[in-house]
Amino acid sequence: MEMTMTLHNAQQRDPRLVPAPFGSRLDTYIALSDFDRPTLVVDLDRVEQQYRALSAGLGRATIHYAVKANPAEEVIARLVALGSHFDAASRGEIALCLAQGARPRDISFGNTIKKPSDIAWAWDRGITLFAADSEEELEKIAEHAPGARVYIRLIVETSEADWPLTRKFGCDASKALELLDYATDLSLEPVGFSFHVGSQTRRAEMWIPALDALAATWRAAQAAGHELSVLNIGGGFPAFYGEEIEAPEAYARAVMGLVTERFGEVAHIMAEPGRGMVAEAGTIVAETMLVSRKSDRDVHRWVYLDIGRFSGLAETEGEAIRYQLETGRDHEAMGPCILAGPSCDSADVLYEKRPVMLPLGLKSGDRVLIRNTGAYTSTYSSVGFNGFPPLDVVCI
Amino acid sequence: MEMTMTLHNAQQRDPRLVPAPFGSRLDTYIALSDFDRPTLVVDLDRVEQQYRALSAGLGRATIHYAVKANPAEEVIARLVALGSHFDAASRGEIALCLAQGARPRDISFGNTIKKPSDIAWAWDRGITLFAADSEEELEKIAEHAPGARVYIRLIVETSEADWPLTRKFGCDASKALELLDYATDLSLEPVGFSFHVGSQTRRAEMWIPALDALAATWRAAQAAGHELSVLNIGGGFPAFYGEEIEAPEAYARAVMGLVTERFGEVAHIMAEPGRGMVAEAGTIVAETMLVSRKSDRDVHRWVYLDIGRFSGLAETEGEAIRYQLETGRDHEAMGPCILAGPSCDSADVLYEKRPVMLPLGLKSGDRVLIRNTGAYTSTYSSVGFNGFPPLDVVCI
Repeated sequence: MEMTMTLHNAQQRDPRLVPAPFGSRLDTYIALSDFDRPTLVVDLDRVEQQYRALSAGLGRATIHYAVKANPAEEVIARLVALGSHFDAASRGEIALCLAQGARPRDISFGNTIKKPSDIAWAWDRGITLFAADSEEELEKIAEHAPGARVYIRLIVETSEADWPLTRKFGCDASKALELLDYATDLSLEPVGFSFHVGSQTRRAEMWIPALDALAATWRAAQAAGHELSVLNIGGGFPAFYGEEIEAPEAYARAVMGLVTERFGEVAHIMAEPGRGMVAEAGTIVAETMLVSRKSDRDVHRWVYLDIGRFSGLAETEGEAIRYQLETGRDHEAMGPCILAGPSCDSADVLYEKRPVMLPLGLKSGDRVLIRNTGAYTSTYSSVGFNGFPPLDVVCI
Repeated sequence: MEMTMTLHNAQQRDPRLVPAPFGSRLDTYIALSDFDRPTLVVDLDRVEQQYRALSAGLGRATIHYAVKANPAEEVIARLVALGSHFDAASRGEIALCLAQGARPRDISFGNTIKKPSDIAWAWDRGITLFAADSEEELEKIAEHAPGARVYIRLIVETSEADWPLTRKFGCDASKALELLDYATDLSLEPVGFSFHVGSQTRRAEMWIPALDALAATWRAAQAAGHELSVLNIGGGFPAFYGEEIEAPEAYARAVMGLVTERFGEVAHIMAEPGRGMVAEAGTIVAETMLVSRKSDRDVHRWVYLDIGRFSGLAETEGEAIRYQLETGRDHEAMGPCILAGPSCDSADVLYEKRPVMLPLGLKSGDRVLIRNTGAYTSTYSSVGFNGFPPLDVVCI
């Protein structure tokens, strides 16, 4: 596949002026390009490689890519070509998938919070599988997508993920059983359960408590007479942010082993990798805006990049996700820095409690690569906070 | 001024179908309109009223509106017409102000973190006043805006604001004095100091510690032979979010009294209200998407709106800013709720530690007004997180 960049601001550098290319296709493209603003570069072949690895490991489970992780049209198109299914959070995401050639029956409407008009819109376009975790949501689905298949999202308490979830989504086990009955009363087709083990669950064994909890509810539902055919194991597939993770195929295979131990032959298993599919396929190219000290006595330098929490790096909130940084001076002496974004917002600080190591010689104008940023960056970007444009995205 | 809405999705309701209009122009417009997505409605006359009140209180100080608070073209145009000056955070904001008719000499480039190319661009367009808090920034200004006027931003420690600032901006007093000398060495014109008392400083007396600290540095600089002509007192002017604040004119007059006590006859005093100028002029019209309980034993309902932290309400982070909510059922019995946004992101929860009171009868489809949201909402909105469109803005 050729590297295309006609629609973007990136301009090819004269190859004679840059150092010899690095190993990867992504790094070569970046090394040979100029960018006039922070830009996420996504390597579609790397997405494909990850899809194939996850698919091999997940075996009989169907991958429903979590579109919200990175909804770039080129990413969706590549995944459609590979046979992926899709987990959509909104009407907008469904429309995107359909426009890229996904079949309606391969798209699930996985948000438990939906506008009635969006349910009707999706139903009219052939979407038949919906998530719910409450009576009111089931009523909306029954009215606007009569007879649809629904799965009930469970809360499973877990504290082992790098980013444990709040109680925002799901309901407890007894409520879930009631909702299966209620769905039947509403002439919907309750097909099973979903849950989410927590974002960035680094090792397969961390799934055990959640799967155990889910299995108990599953059996209780069967004992109550419900025919369950869909087990949606959600996301949680990790990306590399500096702490060791298992390779995707082995990880997925291990998770599926745990699932099979507990659930045997379920007709249909869904998995919804998002971060685990695209994060490592992307690198953000940023620029150092300023290096300074607040006081001659300060131990740490402050380093300001041209990208921050409101222009793509929202997941640095609470210093939760720690991106790996690379500069052209990483062979020089390093020292700790507080890292911040470019806006006039005092909350726009990326890493302060745990400073990052950057070259002592770093200065304004130096390029900084932010690794494994293919997920949950571009669409978090604000429309124009402080007058800065949103993060640009280039797919190669 | 006529209510115009030709460019937006808002559609006028049939007046016969809606209850009698409420008191204000804003409420009348909202009551008579339908919105197909979350929309911020800004009353430009209310902005003007606030400008006049602040201007009366600030007396001889010049208002530099902090554009980042709300950069809607109509807001900028109205403030240009009123004679306001502008504090710009970026090239994009400068371009916006110039396009709306602001004079270059009335715009300051107040971000201490600037791209060299943006400094050059601004200088070419006649911007002559720049902020800095470091050697490297002064060097960039000296190279790309030779001879420009600069003011040095000081860190002043304060813990009385509702939203105290981090140390991201400014430098300490001894560094500031060095920077004045360094600016002179670089053939720049160092004209004075700026500081920021902290966002949402609710009472004028809270300015005292910061002004005292600044005054000591000011006198030290004068003693060192610097001719200071610019005192930039920054922002911090509050808006009403449920806790009592002083009226804008009285507040501004009291702050200026404190300034005059400490600084006497400074040639030029700048003030940079942002939130205090526009927050109360705006109301977001949102919709209830879902009301549910996670468990039959749950004390609190969960209420999900069609707007959340990633679509305009970023300042609810840490539950810092507590917006006032209104519904059409506020005369009914009320109960506590956890309030969340519509996205599939577990961090998209607005108020949980301190639940909000909402009607027990609230249900999907009910309109919710979020008051005093004219500042720091629209531009924080993400470009399309989870496939949801950004917050719409209508100025009337």
